[in-house]
Amino acid sequence: MATVTIVGAGMMGSALAVPLADRGHSVRLVGTPLDAHIIECLQAGKPHPTLKQSLPGAIRPLPVTALDDALSDTDVIALGVSSAGVRWAAAAIARHAHPDRPILMITKGLDRDATGLRILPDQVQALLPAAVRDAIHPVAVAGPCIAGELARRVPTCVAFTGRSPAVAEHLAALSRGPYYHAFVEEDVVGAEVCAALKNAYAMGIALAAGLHERAGGAPGSVAMHNYEAAVFAQSVAEMRRLVRALGGRPRTVAGLCGVGDLDVTCNGGRTGRFGRWLGLGLGVKESIARMEGATLECLEILEVLRAARPALERTGALEPDALPLLDHLTSVALDDAPVAMPFERFFGASAP
Amino acid sequence: MATVTIVGAGMMGSALAVPLADRGHSVRLVGTPLDAHIIECLQAGKPHPTLKQSLPGAIRPLPVTALDDALSDTDVIALGVSSAGVRWAAAAIARHAHPDRPILMITKGLDRDATGLRILPDQVQALLPAAVRDAIHPVAVAGPCIAGELARRVPTCVAFTGRSPAVAEHLAALSRGPYYHAFVEEDVVGAEVCAALKNAYAMGIALAAGLHERAGGAPGSVAMHNYEAAVFAQSVAEMRRLVRALGGRPRTVAGLCGVGDLDVTCNGGRTGRFGRWLGLGLGVKESIARMEGATLECLEILEVLRAARPALERTGALEPDALPLLDHLTSVALDDAPVAMPFERFFGASAP
Repeated sequence: MATVTIVGAGMMGSALAVPLADRGHSVRLVGTPLDAHIIECLQAGKPHPTLKQSLPGAIRPLPVTALDDALSDTDVIALGVSSAGVRWAAAAIARHAHPDRPILMITKGLDRDATGLRILPDQVQALLPAAVRDAIHPVAVAGPCIAGELARRVPTCVAFTGRSPAVAEHLAALSRGPYYHAFVEEDVVGAEVCAALKNAYAMGIALAAGLHERAGGAPGSVAMHNYEAAVFAQSVAEMRRLVRALGGRPRTVAGLCGVGDLDVTCNGGRTGRFGRWLGLGLGVKESIARMEGATLECLEILEVLRAARPALERTGALEPDALPLLDHLTSVALDDAPVAMPFERFFGASAP
Repeated sequence: MATVTIVGAGMMGSALAVPLADRGHSVRLVGTPLDAHIIECLQAGKPHPTLKQSLPGAIRPLPVTALDDALSDTDVIALGVSSAGVRWAAAAIARHAHPDRPILMITKGLDRDATGLRILPDQVQALLPAAVRDAIHPVAVAGPCIAGELARRVPTCVAFTGRSPAVAEHLAALSRGPYYHAFVEEDVVGAEVCAALKNAYAMGIALAAGLHERAGGAPGSVAMHNYEAAVFAQSVAEMRRLVRALGGRPRTVAGLCGVGDLDVTCNGGRTGRFGRWLGLGLGVKESIARMEGATLECLEILEVLRAARPALERTGALEPDALPLLDHLTSVALDDAPVAMPFERFFGASAP
């Protein structure tokens, strides 16, 4: 059995602690400076305040002041921070980064730097000290996983992915258990691009629920599911184009990291709620206000892609008309345009 | 404008009449011998009894006794019957089949004959009189379309598909309008295989809702969506394998006829209800009884595939372990086995 130190005690970091503890690993759950209240609750034996669920007693909650000690003799470092916390976390673990100490990250997606788009495992690697950087290949957990369900031991399939499939398989083998099914996805670029894109597209799929309500309809099997399903299918087509344009394999979109994660994002949580409000016609400002400060990854990725788009078209990686749905979602969610889905431009013959 | 005669006044045949009438075509909706009550209602100006909706006045409802007259001078014949009615319908139109009179069919899927599996457009073609058979290429409508939504003019994207893409495009051009977006799918085998398979797999995806309820859970964003999404992704993987084994293109699964139709089938109607009951543990007999005689395409396709499977494995078109999810769904829905999803066998490296 191994010692695993999870950095960040938010919902997903804490949820990951559950299958690891159930496997018999020694799990330390260390809060970031923003997690003080969570750690206090857990140390007092109370439920996790955002998961609304008690964690197994074997998980050791620790405040950020205990981080250095915890990292000094851990076998595995797991980054449980949001993408906004990645820089802080990379700095916090720097002194303890070592080729024999694999890094697992629940943060996933895409970020933009001076040179273009970069997947998060590469970003974390680049932030590690130069002396060890090239020998460490962070592994990201992708695929459909609602934290609150994992913490309740709902059967969950995830994909471990990274530049080194061997390290990914090592960490998957260490993590998998009766309800936590960890597979290895070799296409790390495809997996991470899907992880980022699914938020934008799930928002688009959720528009249908809002439009239906706006038209006075009640939820039910006659609603706007035809609309929703067409947007779902076009989302998959555009995700394939973007994955290919960014150097991944389009086929990855047909798997756990693509359609699986897109499906779960439509069913669970805040992205769907936000899309529904836009569909209802509340407008961007009011819809954001109603989210009460929750991170909206869908807006982040739309901004990132809008900025990256000209370069992708200039190099020929993307045809200008390849993404009619994404273009419309950008107008709606960033520029407050009214919803007017350009269905007639969908399902074009554009590759792939 | 054209004269279109729809044979069969069930939900889907009648729903298709709406965009055709809105386009200005002259639409005759002719009931089968089983549709007498529907036609009486429509002729009396009442709502369609199963669509629970009035149809536009321009649609002309006619009893089966008027069929021959209607067919004698129609430009297009549209078959609006269920797969069980295809033989009857083919016989009924035989005298009027002509190379200049294209056949559109809303029936879709797979059937088994002495020589193996056959897609429905091929089956209909084979049933036509020998003198005209080779010159007529029936076109099927595939993709995500809940009849009740189309009849209410919810934006809908469908794929017209057949052995002749030119005929498919001709009929799509004649049908498409502001809310009915008709695209052409050249891979008729892939589209039809998807249309059949999605029923079986949607049943499997719906098991999660039943399992969640059985465990005492209420619907909501923390449910068993992780389970559901993993089954969704594995469904797509297995559909790709089956489409390839049967001579279609795996990529078709990533489009409107595959993920689009699978998504809508999960959200609308009876297949999902049936799967939920199986997940609840009601057993096959009780679950079927609760369907009150509604056709269960999911059971039909599971039977068809079970019978066809040995030959597909013998020829090497399918690996024996390529379909762990379908195997489990077959045990659950045909042999009343308890639900025990074999997640650990999912997402294997099997091609494609």
